[in-house]
Amino acid sequence: MNKFGLFGKFIAKDGDRDKLVAILLEAAASMQSLEECEIYHVSISEDEPNAIFVYEVWSDQTAHQESLSLESTKKLITHAKTMITGMERISTLIPIGGKVS
Amino acid sequence: MNKFGLFGKFIAKDGDRDKLVAILLEAAASMQSLEECEIYHVSISEDEPNAIFVYEVWSDQTAHQESLSLESTKKLITHAKTMITGMERISTLIPIGGKVS
Repeated sequence: MNKFGLFGKFIAKDGDRDKLVAILLEAAASMQSLEECEIYHVSISEDEPNAIFVYEVWSDQTAHQESLSLESTKKLITHAKTMITGMERISTLIPIGGKVS
Repeated sequence: MNKFGLFGKFIAKDGDRDKLVAILLEAAASMQSLEECEIYHVSISEDEPNAIFVYEVWSDQTAHQESLSLESTKKLITHAKTMITGMERISTLIPIGGKVS
């Protein structure tokens, strides 16, 4: 089965970007022991002050889907929702590999 | 200084995608000992059969810039050029962190 990758963008309410970054980093931390989650990497952008980008790599699409029903994820999503004004899935990917350090 | 991140896309000539993926994986391998290159991750996409996506994270923009003048990189770029019909920088990023395994 192919690995499953996503590159997406969240748009935070004015003034909430850094709080939302903190929640997404908490989500990443909560997945440290989740082997199927190989990469969950958070970035911001100079060009878009309210945007937060997440690059994700999962062992497969099922693993990604199942992660959305974890208690820890559901709690973070509920909290994050109050700060999000928009979301965009930029690319759906089949990760091959490369350097990850 | 901020970390520097990129998410970009190469378009390969018909029939050359997998050869180009191999070259990009070779580029990633050549950067294993290059500490400033933290992530160089290659993906393909079901939606775009000739597209190859690269997610990069560098210690800073200067490190990324300098990597382009390495002999190993220049050799790979020369080789890859013959297979590339298009390139697109999708996002320029300030990487914050997250899970990388």
